[in-house]
Amino acid sequence: MRALRVGDTTAVTDIPSPEPDGEAIVRVTMSGICNTDLEIARGYAGFRGTLGHEFVGIVDDPGGGPVARGERVVGEINAGCGTCARCAGGDSRHCPTRTVLGIVGRDGAHADYLRLPARNLVRVPDGVPDPAAVFVEPLAAACGVLERCPMAPGTRVAVIGDGKLGLLCAMVLHAHGLAPVLIGKHAAKLALAAARGIETTIDERRTFDVVVEASGSATGFARALTLLVPQGTLVLKSTFHGATPVDAARVVVDEIRVVGSRCGRFAPALDLLARGFDVTQLVSDVVSLDRADQAMRQAAAPGVLKILLAT
Amino acid sequence: MRALRVGDTTAVTDIPSPEPDGEAIVRVTMSGICNTDLEIARGYAGFRGTLGHEFVGIVDDPGGGPVARGERVVGEINAGCGTCARCAGGDSRHCPTRTVLGIVGRDGAHADYLRLPARNLVRVPDGVPDPAAVFVEPLAAACGVLERCPMAPGTRVAVIGDGKLGLLCAMVLHAHGLAPVLIGKHAAKLALAAARGIETTIDERRTFDVVVEASGSATGFARALTLLVPQGTLVLKSTFHGATPVDAARVVVDEIRVVGSRCGRFAPALDLLARGFDVTQLVSDVVSLDRADQAMRQAAAPGVLKILLAT
Repeated sequence: MRALRVGDTTAVTDIPSPEPDGEAIVRVTMSGICNTDLEIARGYAGFRGTLGHEFVGIVDDPGGGPVARGERVVGEINAGCGTCARCAGGDSRHCPTRTVLGIVGRDGAHADYLRLPARNLVRVPDGVPDPAAVFVEPLAAACGVLERCPMAPGTRVAVIGDGKLGLLCAMVLHAHGLAPVLIGKHAAKLALAAARGIETTIDERRTFDVVVEASGSATGFARALTLLVPQGTLVLKSTFHGATPVDAARVVVDEIRVVGSRCGRFAPALDLLARGFDVTQLVSDVVSLDRADQAMRQAAAPGVLKILLAT
Repeated sequence: MRALRVGDTTAVTDIPSPEPDGEAIVRVTMSGICNTDLEIARGYAGFRGTLGHEFVGIVDDPGGGPVARGERVVGEINAGCGTCARCAGGDSRHCPTRTVLGIVGRDGAHADYLRLPARNLVRVPDGVPDPAAVFVEPLAAACGVLERCPMAPGTRVAVIGDGKLGLLCAMVLHAHGLAPVLIGKHAAKLALAAARGIETTIDERRTFDVVVEASGSATGFARALTLLVPQGTLVLKSTFHGATPVDAARVVVDEIRVVGSRCGRFAPALDLLARGFDVTQLVSDVVSLDRADQAMRQAAAPGVLKILLAT
């Protein structure tokens, strides 16, 4: 089968299809290129193998799981051991020995077939088309902001960053009845949010109860601190790398709360999609898996949002 | 009157006693030297005036307030405007135009007399002697850890730093039925905590649900992160200066919560003292206000804990 492999180079390669080995096999129909994929291809996290963790597909071998062969599914990307306290508590996202689809110790989704534990698969409602369903994972990550930092109506919230993650965060907050201000640099991307009724700006001098940092920039943390009221909350979504300089004294003096947020649960994201939440405006292009390496370069270009791969 | 003034130098100076000017006047009987005083004397925060924010004294002029002349009092150090939303909500600690006793725009407590808004004064219970009452402010700051990060029984918690603040934090957590591990570098300071039944160590390889960073060291933040479980909480108490390098990706991937904590409320601290909570083991020396400049040097010496000034 075809797979976008990262090793010494990143290229579409012909490799054997995965064997079930006690898990489920999914025939991928569509996958999404995430910034994390670009970072992994640059050497982040030391991953070698098949890239990709955003996908929708058809169950080929249900692996004894609850979803039947032929059903359309998405999949939680964290595969826990199934037995530790975290997994027993129903949340494998922080299992200490987890593998992560296309990120840590497990081949990913930019391929014709992938393998995941059967319990990770979630059926996609019929009304949600593939180009929307493929957004479940990043949309769940955006919904995860509210899981980690519940916000009462009227909370003054800003999102820094008008890339895919920032846009999705602003859109999710807006869909939950909040009035986020999206702070970005790119007129075309801000216009997408503005068209949905989200307030946007390239600069902001107000202060906020909550700031979501989704810019992926090392300076985003410091910028976010300047926007917060005392005892405000900074939600960190970006996994920017290396040591970020932080004014820790400001965190103490103003008693700021900083909350890291990574993966979200799939259920709230699927719920939003089933209710018609439109993410397809974020699709910049759909490219054949055959040309996945070019698609990666395209995804890294300025102004580009989501690039989808079709098998 | 005598006052320890910081300007181009730090010295005991003879200055006029403060006029009430609508506020209360307190005759200071005892004040405590805090690390913040040492930092201010080195130029931190750009303060010029009388140092000191930990005190106990006798009301000289009640300023129309609820505490009568002659009563023994301590005082909340943040003096809010009294009218903004923060102040109206009963918490002046984050009033945007507040002054802070001996720290921001208001002469402090290392003097014969000080001035504070009458509403800031709190009567000291009779059973609490002056050398204990003078600890109310730093003890309140230690209690503030639980205000910002409530902990259920059984929470695995560590405190980094065996200075005054770290010791007080560990002692407060211990007094609340938790079993903190105090991580420090100084055998004599750790022995003080151990004598109270607190587990101490110079190194720690376990992980914790909550880590309180009270070392005052720029590396404390990074150290604390290595001790936390996923989704753990780091309580920052130290106002260390300049940009601290932080592994923000680790905060995101492990969904860490970082909570800044500065001043606490006085009531829980006075409550502890009234119930016999012993802080006087932390007193290294009591020095006359006349020799406050030497006392400052003494307070900065290695191994020294609290230096009290007596008028």
